[in-house]
Amino acid sequence: MISNKMMDYVSSNSMIRAMFEEGKKLSLIYGEENVFDFSLGNPNALPPENIKKAIVEILSDESPNLVHGYMNNSGYEDVRAQIAKHLNLKHNLKLAFNNLIMTCGAAGGLNVLLKTLLNPGDEIITFAPFFGEYKNYANNFQGNLVVVSSNPETFKPDLEELKSKITNKTKAIIINSPNNPTGVVYSKALIIELADVLNKKQEELSSSIYLISDEPYREIVYDGVKVPYILNYYINSFVAYSYSKSLSLPGERIGYIACNGEMDDFNNVMQALNVANRILGFVNAPSLFQRVIGKCLDAEVDVSMYKNNRDLLYNHLTKIGFSCVKPEGAFYLFPKSLIADDKKFAEEAKKLNILIVPGSAFGAPGHFRLSYCIPNKKVEKSLDSFSRLAKMY
Amino acid sequence: MISNKMMDYVSSNSMIRAMFEEGKKLSLIYGEENVFDFSLGNPNALPPENIKKAIVEILSDESPNLVHGYMNNSGYEDVRAQIAKHLNLKHNLKLAFNNLIMTCGAAGGLNVLLKTLLNPGDEIITFAPFFGEYKNYANNFQGNLVVVSSNPETFKPDLEELKSKITNKTKAIIINSPNNPTGVVYSKALIIELADVLNKKQEELSSSIYLISDEPYREIVYDGVKVPYILNYYINSFVAYSYSKSLSLPGERIGYIACNGEMDDFNNVMQALNVANRILGFVNAPSLFQRVIGKCLDAEVDVSMYKNNRDLLYNHLTKIGFSCVKPEGAFYLFPKSLIADDKKFAEEAKKLNILIVPGSAFGAPGHFRLSYCIPNKKVEKSLDSFSRLAKMY
Repeated sequence: MISNKMMDYVSSNSMIRAMFEEGKKLSLIYGEENVFDFSLGNPNALPPENIKKAIVEILSDESPNLVHGYMNNSGYEDVRAQIAKHLNLKHNLKLAFNNLIMTCGAAGGLNVLLKTLLNPGDEIITFAPFFGEYKNYANNFQGNLVVVSSNPETFKPDLEELKSKITNKTKAIIINSPNNPTGVVYSKALIIELADVLNKKQEELSSSIYLISDEPYREIVYDGVKVPYILNYYINSFVAYSYSKSLSLPGERIGYIACNGEMDDFNNVMQALNVANRILGFVNAPSLFQRVIGKCLDAEVDVSMYKNNRDLLYNHLTKIGFSCVKPEGAFYLFPKSLIADDKKFAEEAKKLNILIVPGSAFGAPGHFRLSYCIPNKKVEKSLDSFSRLAKMY
Repeated sequence: MISNKMMDYVSSNSMIRAMFEEGKKLSLIYGEENVFDFSLGNPNALPPENIKKAIVEILSDESPNLVHGYMNNSGYEDVRAQIAKHLNLKHNLKLAFNNLIMTCGAAGGLNVLLKTLLNPGDEIITFAPFFGEYKNYANNFQGNLVVVSSNPETFKPDLEELKSKITNKTKAIIINSPNNPTGVVYSKALIIELADVLNKKQEELSSSIYLISDEPYREIVYDGVKVPYILNYYINSFVAYSYSKSLSLPGERIGYIACNGEMDDFNNVMQALNVANRILGFVNAPSLFQRVIGKCLDAEVDVSMYKNNRDLLYNHLTKIGFSCVKPEGAFYLFPKSLIADDKKFAEEAKKLNILIVPGSAFGAPGHFRLSYCIPNKKVEKSLDSFSRLAKMY
C-alpha cells in the first residue's frame, strides 16, 4: 500500500537494517568492547563547551516567543548577517544576510537546492566515490544522478569524463570536499580547473550550470590543509554547510546554504530557496539552534582525536598490505578491499567483529569505508583484528 | 534558471510578500500600535516554564553526544515510548514506541507521510476550507489534491460529495480539526460517519484509504470541547501532531506521526516513514527538543488569552453584521467577507490598517481569516476599525 518507490527503498533498507541488527547481536555475544564498529558517521568529539553556555544565555536573555517562534522561512536575519560577516572575514567575500538561508543541516539544504533547480529529467553530476544519498535526493525531484569517475589512485575527479557527460540536461554538479567516503580534499588548482570546465560548458551550451559544494566536513582537516571556498572560484556556486560535524551537533539539524550573489537568476533563486524550505515541510531551520550558532561562530571541536585515529589506522593498514589514499580531512578511510567483491569482504571482516561499509554503497566497488569517529582505544584494540583479516588473503 | 514549478511558486509568493511589505510600511507610517495584523499564525502564548527547566536539566544531566547526536531516523526510542504511554493514558490506546516516529513538526510529518504513500497521479482528498500548503505537499510527490466542499453555515464536510469523489486513485484523506482557517472541531458523531464512508469505500474498491489527521491545534480548544482521537475510530489512520501551538514552539520544528498498529501494511509503512524522514533531508527530528518533549508531556500553554480574543472578536463581529461560525478551537475566525470579492475586501480592510488573509487562500472565496494569536489589547483596540469597515457596506 506504500508507494512503489518507497517499496524499493524499504527492501534495500532491510539489508542495512539486518547488518545493523547483526552488529548488535555481535555485541551481545562478544561484549561491546570486542566489537569494532567502523560503520557509522556519528561524530564522537564533544561539542564545544560554548554551545551549552550559549543555550543557557539565550534562554535567560531573549524572549521565549522569539527564541522558539517562527521567523522568515530563510531564518533570522541577524543570525544570517553574523554568519555572512564571519564568512567574509574568513574567505574574503562580500556576502550579506540575503546571500544565506538557514537549513536543517546540509541534507535539508541539498533537498531545498534540488527542489529549486530541477525540472523532471534534469541531471545532477557527482564524482565517485560519493555519498549515496545524492542519488535519493535527485530522485526526490525526478532528477537523475550522473556519476563521473575519479582516478582510483588519488580520488581526484576525471575532468575529461566530466566534459563528456555534461549536456543540456545538466543542472548542477555536486562536489564534497573533504570527501565522504575518501577523506580527500580538493586543491585550489583542481577547483580552478573544474570552474574552467564548467565556464566553457556554460558558454558552449548557453546554459547555467550550478556548482554545489556539500561541506559538512570543511572544519575536519589535518596537517594544516586548506579547503578552497568555491564562491571565490565560480560564479554560479552554492555552499551547503552543516554544523553537524564541525560542532558535533548532527541531531540538531542546523546548517545553511551560502549563495554567490553574482549567480544567474540570483533573486529568483533566493526566493525559490525560501519557498522550497517552507513547502518541503522544513518551514525553517530549528530556531534555538539558529540563535546558538550566532553566538558560537568561532567555536570548534578538537579534531586531534580524529587525527590520531587516522594516523593509527592509515599507518597500520598500509603496513599490513592495504592500499589506501591518505585522507586529509573528514573522519573516513577508504581502502581497497583485499578481494574484488567488497560485500563479501565486509562479511569476512564481520567474522572478526569488524563492521565496515562496502564501497558499492558509494559507487566504488572493490573498496570499503571505515568511519574512525570512535574512541581512540577502540581503534588501537582493533589493529590486531585488521592484521588477522589481512593474513586471510 | 530555477525549475518551472518553483517559478510559479515564486510569482505567487511575490504577492504575499508584497502584502507583507505593505504591512510593514503601514507600521512605519501609522505606528506599530495602530496596525492590526491578523494575518500570521505565530502563537503569542508563552511556552510553559517547564520547557526552559527541561532544557537546562538535560544539558546538565545527559551526555552532550547523546543530546545533540544522531539517533534512529525515527527518533529516540525512550522518547517515543514516553509519548506512546502518554497517548495511551489519554485516549485509551495500546501504542508502543514503534507506532510513532518523531518529525520536524506536522509539516515535516505530512511530507513524510505523503512521500510514503503516493505514487505519481495519486489523489489526496481534503475538505474546504483547508490549509493551503496541502496542495503544495501533494504536489511535492506528483500527487493531486482533490477538494470536497463543506456546509457553508457549519463548515462540516459534505460526506455525500466525498463519496462521489473517492476513486481508485484516492490514497488518503486529510482532516484538520480544530481547523485552520475556521476553528471548527469535528465531533465524535462526524468522525464515526466519516469512518463509515471510508470503510465502505475501501470494501467497494478493494483498496486501502488512509485517514490522516493533521492536529497542530488539538490542545487549543475552548469551553471543554473534546477532539476525538481518530486512531480509536478508523483502522487505517495516522495522526500528524506538532508541538508548535500546544507548547508555543513553532520555530523548533518538533512533532510526531502516530500510526494505528492495525493498519494495512503496518510494517512496511513504518519502515517507509523511517526512510522517508531520512531521504527527504530531515534525517531526524531535532534531537534536543525530542528529549525536551519527553520531559514536558504534561506541559500546556495558557489558552485563556486566545479564548478572550475569540470571544471579543466573535461577539463584536457578529454584532456589527458579520456572519461567522463560532470557532471551538485553534486561534482563527473565518467570517464571510461583506462583498463576494474577498481579495478586494482584504484591500479595503488594509485601508483601515487591518491585515487579513482572503479566504481564497484556503479554497473558500467570499471569506477572510483572522488570526487572533495577538495581544488582547490589540484586539480590543481593533474593534472600532472593524466597525468602521462594516459601515462601508
